Amino acid sequence: MTTQARRLEGEAAAAAVREEVKARVEALRRQHRTAGLAVVQVGNLPASDIYVRRKIEAADALGLFAQLVRIQESDGYPTLLTRIGSLNSDARIHGFLVQLPLPDGWDEAYALRSVNPEKDLDGCHPTNVGRATLGDPNAYWPCTPLGIFELLRHYHIPLAGAHAVVVGRSRLVGRPLATILSQKGVDATVTLCHSRSGDLARYTRDADVVVMAAGQPGALTGDMIREGAVVVDVGVHRVPDPDHPGKTRLIGDVDEASVAPKAAWLSPVPGGVGPMTVVMLMRNAVTACERTLGSVPAAERGPA
Amino acid sequence: MTTQARRLEGEAAAAAVREEVKARVEALRRQHRTAGLAVVQVGNLPASDIYVRRKIEAADALGLFAQLVRIQESDGYPTLLTRIGSLNSDARIHGFLVQLPLPDGWDEAYALRSVNPEKDLDGCHPTNVGRATLGDPNAYWPCTPLGIFELLRHYHIPLAGAHAVVVGRSRLVGRPLATILSQKGVDATVTLCHSRSGDLARYTRDADVVVMAAGQPGALTGDMIREGAVVVDVGVHRVPDPDHPGKTRLIGDVDEASVAPKAAWLSPVPGGVGPMTVVMLMRNAVTACERTLGSVPAAERGPA
Repeated sequence: MTTQARRLEGEAAAAAVREEVKARVEALRRQHRTAGLAVVQVGNLPASDIYVRRKIEAADALGLFAQLVRIQESDGYPTLLTRIGSLNSDARIHGFLVQLPLPDGWDEAYALRSVNPEKDLDGCHPTNVGRATLGDPNAYWPCTPLGIFELLRHYHIPLAGAHAVVVGRSRLVGRPLATILSQKGVDATVTLCHSRSGDLARYTRDADVVVMAAGQPGALTGDMIREGAVVVDVGVHRVPDPDHPGKTRLIGDVDEASVAPKAAWLSPVPGGVGPMTVVMLMRNAVTACERTLGSVPAAERGPA
Repeated sequence: MTTQARRLEGEAAAAAVREEVKARVEALRRQHRTAGLAVVQVGNLPASDIYVRRKIEAADALGLFAQLVRIQESDGYPTLLTRIGSLNSDARIHGFLVQLPLPDGWDEAYALRSVNPEKDLDGCHPTNVGRATLGDPNAYWPCTPLGIFELLRHYHIPLAGAHAVVVGRSRLVGRPLATILSQKGVDATVTLCHSRSGDLARYTRDADVVVMAAGQPGALTGDMIREGAVVVDVGVHRVPDPDHPGKTRLIGDVDEASVAPKAAWLSPVPGGVGPMTVVMLMRNAVTACERTLGSVPAAERGPA
């Protein structure tokens, strides 16, 4: 009999954050305020449909005001910029995010720079990226790395002095996560790997914590980690289900069959990082609303 | 006889950049423009005196207009902010930097945020940090990491796919250097170590490139690196000279005696990173002036 990694359950960690968010929503209600959140979706990619629906449902369930702004690709890029402008000045909306990816040929960077940094709930604006990197506790971090950090914290995974290997250098996940984990007070030693790193195992074999955000199904196998490593899987891939011909299933960037017997902890796909991303968005929205009232204790806002 | 590491000579690499800067100064002159640069120095720390003088002299030698703005600690913090405001709107000054550190109790972060990002030659403003991190080729990077990158490039040190270990997570050196080296197109795999990393050798022993910006004299010894590693020393410490009682000498974060016989390349202290920092400031100033004319080819501006 092999022991199996304990599961980093996103739902359990998210439930704890939801309790905190609920209490803050209730405190806002006593001051006659409702945190308002919008999600802008362009087109109708099936994956985006699911993610956006989850965000809106979570906001509804927690008593936030939630608005879905849908734009068709045929409406054109200027329409997106116009809608962003409207949300920037809409007093009911304390923050919003533009669901990525945008259609091919739409200037993503310019759209994200058009979001008012004070309402930039996914921390994409250069001002938030810079302020967060410099350790400003008032900056917004992107929700996925923030959620991964919260997931590790919920399960008391030691990070100070640990070697964390982050695979994937994307703007929304890998790079900001590397920054969060290496900040003062978190104090992991972080190696940021990517598509040009060559032999990944050179790095992952020494890691106490491995975060896979590479976008490659099953890329991390058991032989690439040390016994007792903590493994977080950010990948989500829909693949044919070998056990049910004609059906599909979701897998991550981690080969669960070989990693689970060797790792100490492993986040499942689905049910690991996904629920955390959603709940961190809720927390950022409540923070944005609270800021319109006055000061918010920095400790509630993130790792900085 | 032991072989010794080849030297990453800052003066040689800086001379090459100076030729490029001279050509651009000359092109500006033909358009009746002179790049203008200011350095703001508060108080009179001996180290700052030396650094500031080198920057002003380098600017004079290259035909830039250079202004030294000196403030005494007794003038008070508001005076600093007033001077920054004046430089922000001075048309002769295309860019400037505030020499750090500021006196104890002076809010450094606020002062740096007060610099117009378009004139922020040392890339300290959150907007530049964010834009640089996101890969915007128009952002300014801090001069020291930019100089280290240029030094490695001058000596054709392979970076793509290499493991670079950066020791020190400061805002002005370690953290931005880690970002530069891991960007697309540079493609090193970067490990960022710091004061809480524990056993540094765990990381440095695997490194193809080690950059020491830890602020600890002689912290990297020969047993901590692999044979043939490339070692860059950012440290500058004045210590008693054992060979000349009563005198002092400069040493870095690298123990040269044990590292030089084992490394393939080593940057000397002084004469390694220092001259590069100065010349990158000159290049950033010329870029700032060119931008007031029109477009600048992105390729001339940095690694992004």
